[in-house]
Amino acid sequence: MTVPYFTLQWRGDAATGALWLIDQTKLPEAYEELCCTTAEIVFEAIRSLRVRGAPAIGVAAAYGVLTGTQALRSSPPDLFRQKLRSVAEYLASSRPTAVNLFWALDRMTGFADRQPSSLTSAELHDRLLVEAKAIDDEDKAMCLAIGHHGSLLLEDGMSVLTHCNAGGLATAGDGTALSVIFAAVRAGKKIHVFADETRPLLQGARLTAWELMKRQIPVTVICDNMAAQVMKEGRVHCVVTGADRIAANGDAANKIGTYGVAVLAKYHGVPFYVAAPSSTFDLSLADGSGIPIEQRKDEEIAESFGKRTVPRGVSVYNPAFDVTPASLIDALITEKGVVRNPTKESVAKHFV
Amino acid sequence: MTVPYFTLQWRGDAATGALWLIDQTKLPEAYEELCCTTAEIVFEAIRSLRVRGAPAIGVAAAYGVLTGTQALRSSPPDLFRQKLRSVAEYLASSRPTAVNLFWALDRMTGFADRQPSSLTSAELHDRLLVEAKAIDDEDKAMCLAIGHHGSLLLEDGMSVLTHCNAGGLATAGDGTALSVIFAAVRAGKKIHVFADETRPLLQGARLTAWELMKRQIPVTVICDNMAAQVMKEGRVHCVVTGADRIAANGDAANKIGTYGVAVLAKYHGVPFYVAAPSSTFDLSLADGSGIPIEQRKDEEIAESFGKRTVPRGVSVYNPAFDVTPASLIDALITEKGVVRNPTKESVAKHFV
Repeated sequence: MTVPYFTLQWRGDAATGALWLIDQTKLPEAYEELCCTTAEIVFEAIRSLRVRGAPAIGVAAAYGVLTGTQALRSSPPDLFRQKLRSVAEYLASSRPTAVNLFWALDRMTGFADRQPSSLTSAELHDRLLVEAKAIDDEDKAMCLAIGHHGSLLLEDGMSVLTHCNAGGLATAGDGTALSVIFAAVRAGKKIHVFADETRPLLQGARLTAWELMKRQIPVTVICDNMAAQVMKEGRVHCVVTGADRIAANGDAANKIGTYGVAVLAKYHGVPFYVAAPSSTFDLSLADGSGIPIEQRKDEEIAESFGKRTVPRGVSVYNPAFDVTPASLIDALITEKGVVRNPTKESVAKHFV
Repeated sequence: MTVPYFTLQWRGDAATGALWLIDQTKLPEAYEELCCTTAEIVFEAIRSLRVRGAPAIGVAAAYGVLTGTQALRSSPPDLFRQKLRSVAEYLASSRPTAVNLFWALDRMTGFADRQPSSLTSAELHDRLLVEAKAIDDEDKAMCLAIGHHGSLLLEDGMSVLTHCNAGGLATAGDGTALSVIFAAVRAGKKIHVFADETRPLLQGARLTAWELMKRQIPVTVICDNMAAQVMKEGRVHCVVTGADRIAANGDAANKIGTYGVAVLAKYHGVPFYVAAPSSTFDLSLADGSGIPIEQRKDEEIAESFGKRTVPRGVSVYNPAFDVTPASLIDALITEKGVVRNPTKESVAKHFV
């Protein structure tokens, strides 16, 4: 099965190329590719969710470093390296929750720090493109590995509920949660998917449904508030979501609403799985209480879809993420394998 | 505190008057009154949710009988009575779940059946207006009584979560769930409300928030998938919702998403209350499994807000209601009082 779409790509060489990405805010009605030639365009694309999903944000930021330093290829190396650090700091401020963003930027700056000081700016910039492409390629391989491990948890004929979009559009490759489904389907299993539409920005309705349709996997979109009902009807056999940051004890931050789905799954005896790469783990945090939760602007709820739906003057609460405690997670799926009933100990063991 | 808006009103006498109602599909951005001069307009207003909420639908249908028979005031009584029955049957088919609709229509036809056959059509029509107004007035009184009983469950400083709109706009008076809040506020208690926006039609964001704002009660709108998070944060002290039909054992059908909120409330130790008039009870049903659940069209989810949000060709599941089992309900609040931990026995006792 060839992948019928891409998420983001560096096109061209380091000197003259650029980052291209699908403008995900336009899906599903329009398919538009955005050419990012500056760090500012990449920043805005991340902030405005034109590119989103923790792993994809990391890869976009890595390429963003390339665009932000491209104009300094003929400058003195000191100036280039200084600009590199400021571009990385700038891109790191685009969104606060996804740890992959910081991870990818640290990797780019760390890589640069390890390169000989004798390199010209152009030579260093060329090498940075190789490193960014390595992050990109590793992300694709990571997706396939997550898919493989997770697919062993799915049986033929299962119906899987997912929340938000942890698909190919959230990574450089096959996705995390959806990669599990894609791998199961490739292995010949029949899988049906319930996609929570995922308010306020409807990544489930717009993106997850689009990806599954493109891959000809049957999908039914429901409003977030219908998940309990389909579980009650016995039509959900497991839940698989992605994660934006996972603490050392297995507590997982993901799109707002994930925690509620996990509570509902527990109540209905439905297994709840979280699929995410190693780079999503922040082992410096003992538990989920230390994960900063991005608060987004009121208009996403009050004026989404171009129409005012909340009376003017009424307050709105709009956290972008919530934290699902490890006690509600039946398994974490990473590119290294599966951690069942995650705890501080089993997570630590997974990363030895 | 005077009520700063009305929901529906008969204006004029029986011969030349009409039913006026707020077109609730236009709120909160536009306030438009719709004049219903035929049963067809009333049918369409109910079907399209211009008027909605189980008690309001009942009152609208009662007045709808008036509009549907108005042209026959000079016809022979037999013809008038025949038309009356056919209009009532027609209006009963506008929506399937709210038992108040059938209850109000049965009351209107039963009332007509008990009137002397010597009456002229005009005389019978005049009396039917008196009966419809009685239903209207009783609804207003019912709201106040529900508010009084329910307000005793609320304490000063509480934050109450509600789902959908069970407010004045859902009745001819002060509402059911919101009447509980209005009565508590009238009694001097400070109450804050979290309003689930309530996809797909956003009655919480559009209508509940509008009513609370009009009454100067602080309200925060959240997406449905944020209810778990605000409960986890300890910011919800109880949940109060309405109901569209309640079975003999206390199982309650209400807007889709209510069941999920009830599960979340149980998990977080938050009391869950359902406020509804006696007319909402269908004692012929042993439990909630017998309540028919209206399935509404895909476009409400896929094309709401005038913009396509689900890819064309992707299937959608759109149940309008779900059933919350009595075991998740801490109290039913009716105009007669409060039934704590409802069971078949305690519900039966409540109606003796």
